[in-house]
Amino acid sequence: MITSLSNQKIKQIIALRDKPRIRNDSGLFIAEGVRMFEEAPPEQIREICVSQPTWEQMESGDKYPLIWKKLLLCRERDIALEQVSEEVFRKASDTQTPQGILFVMEQAAYSLPEAVARAGRRQRQGGRPALFLVLEDIQDPGNLGTILRTGEGAGVDGVIMNRGTVDIYNPKTIRSTMGSLFRVPFFRVERPEEAIALLRRERIRICAAHLEAERYYDEISYGEGSAFLIGNEGNGLRRETAMEADLLLKIPMEGRLESLNAAVAAALLMYQAAGAYRRSGEFC
Amino acid sequence: MITSLSNQKIKQIIALRDKPRIRNDSGLFIAEGVRMFEEAPPEQIREICVSQPTWEQMESGDKYPLIWKKLLLCRERDIALEQVSEEVFRKASDTQTPQGILFVMEQAAYSLPEAVARAGRRQRQGGRPALFLVLEDIQDPGNLGTILRTGEGAGVDGVIMNRGTVDIYNPKTIRSTMGSLFRVPFFRVERPEEAIALLRRERIRICAAHLEAERYYDEISYGEGSAFLIGNEGNGLRRETAMEADLLLKIPMEGRLESLNAAVAAALLMYQAAGAYRRSGEFC
Repeated sequence: MITSLSNQKIKQIIALRDKPRIRNDSGLFIAEGVRMFEEAPPEQIREICVSQPTWEQMESGDKYPLIWKKLLLCRERDIALEQVSEEVFRKASDTQTPQGILFVMEQAAYSLPEAVARAGRRQRQGGRPALFLVLEDIQDPGNLGTILRTGEGAGVDGVIMNRGTVDIYNPKTIRSTMGSLFRVPFFRVERPEEAIALLRRERIRICAAHLEAERYYDEISYGEGSAFLIGNEGNGLRRETAMEADLLLKIPMEGRLESLNAAVAAALLMYQAAGAYRRSGEFC
Repeated sequence: MITSLSNQKIKQIIALRDKPRIRNDSGLFIAEGVRMFEEAPPEQIREICVSQPTWEQMESGDKYPLIWKKLLLCRERDIALEQVSEEVFRKASDTQTPQGILFVMEQAAYSLPEAVARAGRRQRQGGRPALFLVLEDIQDPGNLGTILRTGEGAGVDGVIMNRGTVDIYNPKTIRSTMGSLFRVPFFRVERPEEAIALLRRERIRICAAHLEAERYYDEISYGEGSAFLIGNEGNGLRRETAMEADLLLKIPMEGRLESLNAAVAAALLMYQAAGAYRRSGEFC
């Protein structure tokens, strides 16, 4: 059992939890909680820590009976399983009330050109039109996680993030995805323009919400594939990025509001397109 | 200038910031930041604190030039204006990077029966149909703030919260409203049923998102007024509350998602109704 904060594994976990740079260099990240563990793809799990009291409650049979199978699958892959004292676990955890299980994972590697080509092919063959999000400089980890979660609900083909967007492996982001992190393909690009060029090649229309747009987002047709550009919480899209769009859209706002929350705007746009896809072809 | 944390005013501010009970008993709350100050109704402001460095930067002319007018309006009302040392201000502030201005305010007092009657009258007279939200046990302060903000955008007549919903005067909620706190009427009720009875009397249809609903939220008409019931983040609506609804709606979800974020669900429902109102009568 690990009982010391100076244990190398614990030090690595805390560094991975707190430092985007170390996550980036190692290609690893930390996930936490029972549901996350149940949903994590075993082939990406590298190491599992269970707090000692949780382990004891699990052994005595009345806590988390469903995770034994996953633990066994991991053992069969020779993934290390460590018991950690309650105190050390609390320091390693990112939550106020830890569930007693955390694990080191390999970062996912999705190919953007492949995902865009696949969605484009499906669309050409008369299937559900493509649906992508392109995020620019999203700063709030909770917003990013909520966008991924909503994206799964709307059926996005992928969420593309520029370099200035907060790290998707930030513990708060991971929590707010509610497991969508493992189910929605996501991609990092240097600049939004890179993604836009790929999307356009597959005849996916680039749409941006913009205060000066003339048309409402719920009054246009979404017959072809769509990609929505979503900008920074405070400043919106950069001018150069908005100018890349094929279509500017306006979300109507009553009152004296200057903007909607970025995750709310993304939700309205994605669900508008997804609803149009569904109603036109019942592709779901 | 206040330089000590044991100053009575500072003690009161910290208590109001941290303790819902003290906010509730005194009918006061703390708001913070330049934009919030600019938008706060002067008649509700009781006391203003400015950090000393901010005051100096304001005096030398290059920081927040626009708030002098508001400060003067407040002085005319004999509202106390205190300078506070940087260190004490930092302790009193709820943010990581304080903007140097915070203030004590009186809580708003809106009348739910009046607001419902007013919206009902407008609706009967052929104006924009009523739009209300009824929140049950919303726990996340950021979600509540985002719901208020989105509500302003969608043009809600009011946001009703049951007793189990997090305090709207929580500093994190206030921040995420982005000023909508001062512009959207909100109401606290003991149980959702109280509000539902009032709304129904004005022929406002009570709608609830529900996993077992048969109809999609974007496939029904919203010709009459609507109130949407939004439940707790983890558990959704209580069964008894959902059973009070006139109509159950389903938000389609792809993938293996169990639910959407509560603020996202509220946004989709409110904007769907608001869009229908707009398209049917261009009431905006």
